[in-house]
Amino acid sequence: MRDGILVINAGSSSIKFSLYIANGDEKPLLSCKGQVEGINVSPHFVAKAPHGAVLNEQRWPDQPNLSHSALFKYMIDWIESQLGDAQLKAAGHRVVHGGSQYAQPLLIDDDLMVELEKLVPLAPLHQPHNLAPIRALKEVHPELLQVACFDTAFHRSNPWTSQSFALPRKITGEGVKRYGFHGLSYEYIARQLGQIAPAVARGKVVVCHLGSGASMCAISEGKSIASTMGFTALDGLPMGTRTGTLDAGVVLYLLQQKGMSAKEIEDMLYKQSGLIGVSGVSNDMRVLLESSEPHAAEAVELFVYRISRELGSLAAAMGGIDALVFTAGIGEHSPKVRSLVCEHAQWLGVTIDEDANKHNAQLISTIDSPVSIWVIPTDEEMMIAKHTREVLHSIKA
Amino acid sequence: MRDGILVINAGSSSIKFSLYIANGDEKPLLSCKGQVEGINVSPHFVAKAPHGAVLNEQRWPDQPNLSHSALFKYMIDWIESQLGDAQLKAAGHRVVHGGSQYAQPLLIDDDLMVELEKLVPLAPLHQPHNLAPIRALKEVHPELLQVACFDTAFHRSNPWTSQSFALPRKITGEGVKRYGFHGLSYEYIARQLGQIAPAVARGKVVVCHLGSGASMCAISEGKSIASTMGFTALDGLPMGTRTGTLDAGVVLYLLQQKGMSAKEIEDMLYKQSGLIGVSGVSNDMRVLLESSEPHAAEAVELFVYRISRELGSLAAAMGGIDALVFTAGIGEHSPKVRSLVCEHAQWLGVTIDEDANKHNAQLISTIDSPVSIWVIPTDEEMMIAKHTREVLHSIKA
Repeated sequence: MRDGILVINAGSSSIKFSLYIANGDEKPLLSCKGQVEGINVSPHFVAKAPHGAVLNEQRWPDQPNLSHSALFKYMIDWIESQLGDAQLKAAGHRVVHGGSQYAQPLLIDDDLMVELEKLVPLAPLHQPHNLAPIRALKEVHPELLQVACFDTAFHRSNPWTSQSFALPRKITGEGVKRYGFHGLSYEYIARQLGQIAPAVARGKVVVCHLGSGASMCAISEGKSIASTMGFTALDGLPMGTRTGTLDAGVVLYLLQQKGMSAKEIEDMLYKQSGLIGVSGVSNDMRVLLESSEPHAAEAVELFVYRISRELGSLAAAMGGIDALVFTAGIGEHSPKVRSLVCEHAQWLGVTIDEDANKHNAQLISTIDSPVSIWVIPTDEEMMIAKHTREVLHSIKA
Repeated sequence: MRDGILVINAGSSSIKFSLYIANGDEKPLLSCKGQVEGINVSPHFVAKAPHGAVLNEQRWPDQPNLSHSALFKYMIDWIESQLGDAQLKAAGHRVVHGGSQYAQPLLIDDDLMVELEKLVPLAPLHQPHNLAPIRALKEVHPELLQVACFDTAFHRSNPWTSQSFALPRKITGEGVKRYGFHGLSYEYIARQLGQIAPAVARGKVVVCHLGSGASMCAISEGKSIASTMGFTALDGLPMGTRTGTLDAGVVLYLLQQKGMSAKEIEDMLYKQSGLIGVSGVSNDMRVLLESSEPHAAEAVELFVYRISRELGSLAAAMGGIDALVFTAGIGEHSPKVRSLVCEHAQWLGVTIDEDANKHNAQLISTIDSPVSIWVIPTDEEMMIAKHTREVLHSIKA
């Protein structure tokens, strides 16, 4: 009997899914993936084979307000039609926030749902959307095992100093701490590196997850030691539209001197800053690298500069660095950004092999570089699928 | 004829002064110093000789609301009584904010005062108090030359990337940038190091100004390259009562989820955080180091951790580090803090000589330490006195 594992990653206006099929103890294989998007505006379902061929597509032009649950039901029905002789064994969900307490994936029950609801104030824009499909799936398949995989969990191994702001103890006690995010991506990379280069993975590694959301993580002996995102996913590196690290005094200035509202400031910092804010051209690194606008070049320069500063800070968190890994959209596909980052990092012993870099090779450092440099594609959905199977196995054991 | 140079450093409830006397081109010598404090509450004037003997003290118990200008007049009269055969040639003022435009001290005229007034929104709690005594002194001595020395000026040599947040260009254009502070202290240290160890001063140096306000600065070839304070003096290291670097998302959370006002948040971040917030014991490092409270030890640990992270980040800004300098209250007087910071910094080649460190020696690194470590007392007032004389000389020249 082959097992089906469904992975769900739900946001405010889309629900993404990936269906994995596994035989016994084999590695799960992606069977198909897709999403419902444009919820409440112009709903659209699409499903694709692993290499991109469209398997199914559906629009509801006459029903723009088709309910979340109706769309979800359509999606689940379609997924079930793809199972063949496999049996759907479990669903794994990306849940952005696991608070201070959850350091690994967990089988979901009613008690856990109550606890995860309590974390909504820490991630009001994301957590509710992550929890909704768990409930929806329970309605359709009450017996299906569901697993929550937290984007914060991997960073719970950070020392307390790395998880703390110098705030009054009372506020810290209420949960205003540095949680860090992109944990599923970092955990996947740590495992991949462990297979590709086990000795390197036992050392001090900085991973640069550079996508439209971007962060960096210091991983020592496979454990997260520090990362650039903090209490929220606003902190750290500049991103496509997010400012990254900002003097908190700027927020007070915008409130007190400019008379802006919290909502206006939130919009500015999350949606109008970062690459789009500095360039005025685009939030897309590919567009910026091809642009002849001086402001586009400046946005790239600032992005790289801030990566280089954080690299020094993360190396300090570990007391050195043995390897540097690039991943996610920009990290996997932009030789130019990798080259610029490595140029700034020469002082740490980072020496890039430009020829390997141009070809997006897996290992892009020179043979004598004291710090090895890697390009490793990330796959958060696969990490969730693996976690989900591991939880299943632990139940059976 | 000997020259008198008056240095003024004015805050919200106190005005500090130092009187320097210089003969021709000689280094100015401190003649006396003191302050008016408790303005609007319980005014108190005290003046001391360079080594601390009280020369004059005055209270006005029946006049708690004695005006700023009456107190200022009393202070000036007393200072003038101390000139002997010297002639008061100029007054130098610490002015916290020189905006983007002022990268060196300037002779004050009416036009400059208009420009400095425009910078009040950038430092509303400090700039008005810095400007008030300039006007008061002009009333008493219209002919006296006055010089503005900016706490931000030294950092104007930073590359633009170090001065920028990834904010929308319009907001950056309005002056929301990383200015950096403690510039007069860093400039003084850079000059001192240039005299003590000229070859070291031509290299890559990180200076830790650790007082109740604390920051760090990367200085390469004598020029500031980056520093930890940003748009405001809230950013960077945790301080006695200030939080230092904070995810801007925390401020939005306190506004949106906790319903706090901007003023309440400002009070928390500026007055209830940092060492006092984490320890719950004291904002004074000496008290924390002697306390047996676990929370006091944690405050020290977090302070040191954050210094070590910033050290990596500042080294990255320069592409390496040749020397580390400690200054200001904690930096000059706490062997324990210096020792802990250096322990974290071993990966950079920082090796402390614990014996020299215990004795607060000037050079506290081992003879074979790749990075030399220095303890150099800072003197912002002397820097202002020197700047003021240099401006005078440039006018005569």
